[in-house]
Amino acid sequence: MTVKHISYIKDFTKWKEEFSFSTEISIRFSETDMFGHVNNVSAFIYFEQARIEFFKSIGLFTKLEEDTIPVVADLQCDYHNQLFFGETIKIFVKANLIKNSTLDVHYMAVKPDGKICLTGRGNIVNVDTSTGKAVSLTNEQLQKLQK
Amino acid sequence: MTVKHISYIKDFTKWKEEFSFSTEISIRFSETDMFGHVNNVSAFIYFEQARIEFFKSIGLFTKLEEDTIPVVADLQCDYHNQLFFGETIKIFVKANLIKNSTLDVHYMAVKPDGKICLTGRGNIVNVDTSTGKAVSLTNEQLQKLQK
Amino acid sequence: MTVKHISYIKDFTKWKEEFSFSTEISIRFSETDMFGHVNNVSAFIYFEQARIEFFKSIGLFTKLEEDTIPVVADLQCDYHNQLFFGETIKIFVKANLIKNSTLDVHYMAVKPDGKICLTGRGNIVNVDTSTGKAVSLTNEQLQKLQK
Amino acid sequence: MTVKHISYIKDFTKWKEEFSFSTEISIRFSETDMFGHVNNVSAFIYFEQARIEFFKSIGLFTKLEEDTIPVVADLQCDYHNQLFFGETIKIFVKANLIKNSTLDVHYMAVKPDGKICLTGRGNIVNVDTSTGKAVSLTNEQLQKLQK
Repeated sequence: MTVKHISYIKDFTKWKEEFSFSTEISIRFSETDMFGHVNNVSAFIYFEQARIEFFKSIGLFTKLEEDTIPVVADLQCDYHNQLFFGETIKIFVKANLIKNSTLDVHYMAVKPDGKICLTGRGNIVNVDTSTGKAVSLTNEQLQKLQK
Repeated sequence: MTVKHISYIKDFTKWKEEFSFSTEISIRFSETDMFGHVNNVSAFIYFEQARIEFFKSIGLFTKLEEDTIPVVADLQCDYHNQLFFGETIKIFVKANLIKNSTLDVHYMAVKPDGKICLTGRGNIVNVDTSTGKAVSLTNEQLQKLQK
Repeated sequence: MTVKHISYIKDFTKWKEEFSFSTEISIRFSETDMFGHVNNVSAFIYFEQARIEFFKSIGLFTKLEEDTIPVVADLQCDYHNQLFFGETIKIFVKANLIKNSTLDVHYMAVKPDGKICLTGRGNIVNVDTSTGKAVSLTNEQLQKLQK
Repeated sequence: MTVKHISYIKDFTKWKEEFSFSTEISIRFSETDMFGHVNNVSAFIYFEQARIEFFKSIGLFTKLEEDTIPVVADLQCDYHNQLFFGETIKIFVKANLIKNSTLDVHYMAVKPDGKICLTGRGNIVNVDTSTGKAVSLTNEQLQKLQK
């Protein structure tokens, strides 16, 4: 990755090493645009998909907990290398608790040649579907997160 | 339109004259693809959008009738002229009752220069959300359709 | 599949047996809609993706043949069973030459429980990028298709 | 807008007053998701669309300048209020030069009821299509930007 200032990455080597979960995503033709590469909006499709699979892998926000849903509070993405149709990327995901109801989820996408193409982050808030308010994660949810 | 055999258009002049509703749709950059034009999948986004606005214009399938929803049974599209980013197209929609529960909805999209770019059709079935079964349109719904 | 009249399927058992290529597609969260299932437009994203992988598998329309591109002339889809987020579907693809420049491509999508959810078809025309005209497939391309 | 810390907004009243360009965007049904509202990815489709119309309005990055293209370096979005199908939003766009080759573009989306639903920003780099390198905006481009 070219060295550049990214507010959510203090120490890149450390930041990168903290990821353990990853999932592969194949780019769809409909996700390219007339500039000949993958449309920049598609990065957020991939982050969303990887985040859901990450939560599923630790058993968080699955169907049993239907009274709360994870709501996206903010999202950001830095584009480091262009992505092209036909490439399968590996997306790494990790999450840190920053408030009782809020997770800071980070993303890193790597191309087949090992180059990092995308990095990003965004807060996810645990929201009660009946009230629409943020609610604390349960102890059980917190334990899943710490695994 | 170049003359070609399209199963759902018997007499093109007559077919075209039967449309009265139309709506304008601006193409989004994300709806193009790496071939430099509008991705063929996007045609169905436009048909869906135009169909919903058509139903809204006659008061059909609005929020008051929440016990049934319109379900797409099939869809088809013929591509006559390429569409490009920056173009605003006019989509015409009409619907005929073919069974008590089923509408045959037809579409025609026209480019700014008057050329027809897309034609299509598809059946919409009135489905009871609790049973998942097709149910007849009510007399009130049928009256809206005949307007 | 419930028995119903589909113009492009004369004998369903025979039609189904003629497929040999298939590819798996995971549904993205962004491909669902507010009705709670996979948006009907997404079916065409999957057909496109599966078609490209089918062509790639037989070496057709790959980078070496840059003077022509495959252009979609028409598309249609029948929706047999609803698709939900989290499901991975298997899409079968086959193609028959119907004119020297035109392929009739057929699709069948199967859910994890074995139920057919989508069937469809559409013509693909081999178009010369410099003239924009349909051109015959080369003997080499025809041989790839017959494999 | 609920008061919250957003890194790119120092003084919200001032930030809001600096916008002069705006464009309206109608939400497409295919841009909703199974949670019943507009999918969070769609925000970036709207930002992209509004940015292109903003550039077009000042004559920047139009077809005459084909040797450079605007490349997205990063993007971020804060979600303040949920968006629903059927709503038309107004998106405000402004851009500041932060380096000779780089614009910091800001976005604010407002719902029909006047509530701010989205705010965001992202850097756009002027890239030479032949070399892939960032190049300074021309004096002519800078003048368009200052209008």
